[in-house]
Amino acid sequence: MVELTRRLTAEALGTAILVATVVGSGIMADRLSDDVAVSLLGNTIPTGAILFVLITILGPISGAHFNPAVTLVFALRKELERAAVLPYMLAQILGGIAGTLIAHAMFELPIFQVSETVRTGSAQWTAEAVATLGLLLTILGGLRFKADAIPMLVGLYITAAYWFTASTSFANPAVAIARSLTNTFAGIRPIDLTGFILAQVAGALIAAALASWLFAESRNQIPPIIPEGTERP
Amino acid sequence: MVELTRRLTAEALGTAILVATVVGSGIMADRLSDDVAVSLLGNTIPTGAILFVLITILGPISGAHFNPAVTLVFALRKELERAAVLPYMLAQILGGIAGTLIAHAMFELPIFQVSETVRTGSAQWTAEAVATLGLLLTILGGLRFKADAIPMLVGLYITAAYWFTASTSFANPAVAIARSLTNTFAGIRPIDLTGFILAQVAGALIAAALASWLFAESRNQIPPIIPEGTERP
Amino acid sequence: MVELTRRLTAEALGTAILVATVVGSGIMADRLSDDVAVSLLGNTIPTGAILFVLITILGPISGAHFNPAVTLVFALRKELERAAVLPYMLAQILGGIAGTLIAHAMFELPIFQVSETVRTGSAQWTAEAVATLGLLLTILGGLRFKADAIPMLVGLYITAAYWFTASTSFANPAVAIARSLTNTFAGIRPIDLTGFILAQVAGALIAAALASWLFAESRNQIPPIIPEGTERP
Amino acid sequence: MVELTRRLTAEALGTAILVATVVGSGIMADRLSDDVAVSLLGNTIPTGAILFVLITILGPISGAHFNPAVTLVFALRKELERAAVLPYMLAQILGGIAGTLIAHAMFELPIFQVSETVRTGSAQWTAEAVATLGLLLTILGGLRFKADAIPMLVGLYITAAYWFTASTSFANPAVAIARSLTNTFAGIRPIDLTGFILAQVAGALIAAALASWLFAESRNQIPPIIPEGTERP
Repeated sequence: MVELTRRLTAEALGTAILVATVVGSGIMADRLSDDVAVSLLGNTIPTGAILFVLITILGPISGAHFNPAVTLVFALRKELERAAVLPYMLAQILGGIAGTLIAHAMFELPIFQVSETVRTGSAQWTAEAVATLGLLLTILGGLRFKADAIPMLVGLYITAAYWFTASTSFANPAVAIARSLTNTFAGIRPIDLTGFILAQVAGALIAAALASWLFAESRNQIPPIIPEGTERP
Repeated sequence: MVELTRRLTAEALGTAILVATVVGSGIMADRLSDDVAVSLLGNTIPTGAILFVLITILGPISGAHFNPAVTLVFALRKELERAAVLPYMLAQILGGIAGTLIAHAMFELPIFQVSETVRTGSAQWTAEAVATLGLLLTILGGLRFKADAIPMLVGLYITAAYWFTASTSFANPAVAIARSLTNTFAGIRPIDLTGFILAQVAGALIAAALASWLFAESRNQIPPIIPEGTERP
Repeated sequence: MVELTRRLTAEALGTAILVATVVGSGIMADRLSDDVAVSLLGNTIPTGAILFVLITILGPISGAHFNPAVTLVFALRKELERAAVLPYMLAQILGGIAGTLIAHAMFELPIFQVSETVRTGSAQWTAEAVATLGLLLTILGGLRFKADAIPMLVGLYITAAYWFTASTSFANPAVAIARSLTNTFAGIRPIDLTGFILAQVAGALIAAALASWLFAESRNQIPPIIPEGTERP
Repeated sequence: MVELTRRLTAEALGTAILVATVVGSGIMADRLSDDVAVSLLGNTIPTGAILFVLITILGPISGAHFNPAVTLVFALRKELERAAVLPYMLAQILGGIAGTLIAHAMFELPIFQVSETVRTGSAQWTAEAVATLGLLLTILGGLRFKADAIPMLVGLYITAAYWFTASTSFANPAVAIARSLTNTFAGIRPIDLTGFILAQVAGALIAAALASWLFAESRNQIPPIIPEGTERP
């Protein structure tokens, strides 16, 4: 196994670049357009793209969680050793915060900010629970059936979830914390973090339970029906 | 084979997430922009993206039909056992309706709605027949030549069909029924469902007939000409 | 080899769906937006997407040329038998025209139209020559090094070429002819066809000559340098 | 190994097409829209798309650097022979300039121009250093873990970096020089080149150092944890 220092570096670096992309592209898109849907496209496409990159190049080192909710589920599934759990989460949170600061530096904004964007209420929490549930199902289903497609699966899932959830799908406590420190397009008030994080953890746990049944191996599993003559993958 | 309960759960869950994406991203995009083409982009990209995800992670369980027209064609081709046909369709319809309700909950809209969007007339029906014909050709051609590309094929086909068909390509009776229960961007009046569904079934049957000839195996099939030295896939 | 009738059907069907997508998405996008760049995005994304689909599902049958300039180059390279050349081109032209008519039917427009959009002059012709040169290099380089990526290569090349060539990259005589029969977003005046087609053929022939040297096999070819430990594809 | 002439041709041709795409799509997008974020989307999507194409078809010939900063890092890693370094860089610079001129010819603009767009200051330099650091990590991580995904990795990395860096991510000295010769959307004042190029080289060197540790092989490396029954790639 890769030694823990490198794994934690990968988690911190990946979360930093992810957050720099989310926050930075939000600033760029918001500056350039008066049409909020255009800005959201300019926020969505880079986020999906960078996820593909980060999971591909850092996944083999640390698993590319970049997300305490993902780390929690892997720990519960005994696919991450207990001693690594808190260090992983800490690396993700610190990396995420660094990502926000880097984005501010690149866009000549005050480095330290606190968001004033209100994101609260049961509709937002429902959205975050659904978003995180979907993210974990995507990861666990991908691991079960097509592990090498996970970078594409996660990138495209988040691309969709930015739009179909009313909260634009944070789905990640570390990213949420980092986004509370920017008063730009992607921000969230610190006081609203608790609701978001609780909803995310709830969604992740429901997904873990559902996945343990839905993606379990069958006794007599056969592949999906494919007509004769098909070139099998 | 995976037991029927899990297969039906996969069909219901997949159709629910698909419809939540179609309806939810439609609401989001419509709220954020006055430019309808921008809204349609914000509806198209998430739909194509989630189809890749859902077919990848649920396909190995149920075949990932999410669509009674697809289930019908597989039944006619004897690639789905007769006893599963109606349960599949029911799961798709109920899942789709749940998807609409979840989207409403996330966007703080009244949960139960009825669409008032008129979608009728021979041009719309032609569009739905063409859209469904193309969808089935995509699936059957993919199964014949490149089964592992089907998630990408279906995602990109629907991405295109949202724009080249005048109806924005419902191409799916379960999704159409679910969309009759939302009076938002993606809606369709319940009274217009019959025409849409008949056109979809007609398109699917034409595709099945065409595919049984076009994608049949040749007696002396050879691969397409590839120059020497090519790295074959 | 697949019998000629089926190959010609594949060429006609593929070119028809390609043109229906180009023309149909152009109509849709132009109707929905006042921002021409948004309309061009709504024209570009569906075109790239459908090319991936059509080449994947029809390539194994006919080679998925859908383009007389491509057929010409394959004939010169002796990778298409002489007797098939004119039938291929005819199937492409007739299929393309059918695609325009289908798009009109879906959008409730007069079926038969003649374009009045002026597209002429040396800048446009340069653009068409460059666009077709690039398309053929993409196809021939793909065949040489990564044949199974050709659907993605062509889809993404055209996605780029819609924007970097001043002509929005027709790069295809059959599609150009078909587009002369629609007086909508994607149209071209019939009188301007000659210049476009000559430029396309010139670009294709230059590409064929360049590719026969650039993509030739080396005597001592070795793979690109890859550090130890890399998982080779 | 492919002989040097062909490798240099591939570097020059690839950089020319890359720059023609960056500059040409910038002109097209800027002409068609008043919304700068829409223009940037129309600049981003073609650039990401053409990178996938160019790296796929030219990578096996020359390595598809198209970028002196990349060539520098490969030289330092002893993965490019010393005698090829300056010729590679010269081919990239001349090819890039040719790309700008071709774009001008296609869009009926004066062939020779000098940019007046100011791009300077520490925020811009930070952005360029971050952008180039990320690009090199993407390439070196891709080479280490998934070499056949490099065309997709680089295309998607640049797609993201256009938006998350305040400078829209030139990340390439040859492309920067070429863009100083166009007074359009993508331009940069010649006087601002020095700062950009120094920042790019700094970012590349930091990435090379970081990668030599982060992507080193472990003594007891094991693959990431994957549950039983997964189809391994």
